[in-house]
Amino acid sequence: MEKIEHIGIAVKDLEASNPLFAKLLGVPQYKMEEVATEGVRTSFFMSGPNKIELLEATNPDSPIAKFLEKKGEGIHHVAFAVDDIVSEIARLKQEGFQILNETPKKGADNKLVAFLHPKGTNGVLVELCQEIKEG
Amino acid sequence: MEKIEHIGIAVKDLEASNPLFAKLLGVPQYKMEEVATEGVRTSFFMSGPNKIELLEATNPDSPIAKFLEKKGEGIHHVAFAVDDIVSEIARLKQEGFQILNETPKKGADNKLVAFLHPKGTNGVLVELCQEIKEG
Repeated sequence: MEKIEHIGIAVKDLEASNPLFAKLLGVPQYKMEEVATEGVRTSFFMSGPNKIELLEATNPDSPIAKFLEKKGEGIHHVAFAVDDIVSEIARLKQEGFQILNETPKKGADNKLVAFLHPKGTNGVLVELCQEIKEG
Repeated sequence: MEKIEHIGIAVKDLEASNPLFAKLLGVPQYKMEEVATEGVRTSFFMSGPNKIELLEATNPDSPIAKFLEKKGEGIHHVAFAVDDIVSEIARLKQEGFQILNETPKKGADNKLVAFLHPKGTNGVLVELCQEIKEG
């Protein structure tokens, strides 16, 4: 775990939240991206070495739609940058954490990602993410 | 806003959560501290340029006790590092954000802190924190 790569915030309306977070952070979003497989549309803001990701549901079965229904808007997950996601998954499994997807999958922002079950981490949805290197 | 200074995680039992987060992050907590005025006991872990703060309530009127009752364990707030908290509060107030304490107060980990009302930030409790410099 090298650092907090980003925190993910579930919002109802990405278009409304983008200018709000631009005011808060003092910078506009640097990208917007849809991850169709997860049913989300996202936007990303830099904050020094870290990022803020806003997530809006694109369909009612999206994990974000379910989160909004249950808990309302707010912080949805924290993502940690890792160098080697496969060995980090193995290490955490060994330590007794439950990995939601043991095979890393393609996430937003050019990352391979895996999630830990929040039951084993005091209710916190933890994401691991590794930059996908070119070539 | 220079970076995510830390995320704060509400937990029921700090003694039980400390070894869990040590395993997750690969490092033990570097300090534990009680903030009597806030009714919390905290522990801090480094994650590169960022920190993870665990918060346990020390009395039933603590904001953390209320959070746990309402939402259960999980991410409670995100704190951004600022250079000059007074001017940042003024900037955010000007931008229309509601500041919960317009006069910064002493928080954990040698910081001056102020909070924004989550109603104005998509349900996210945002903390500003400025390192208290010696002398």
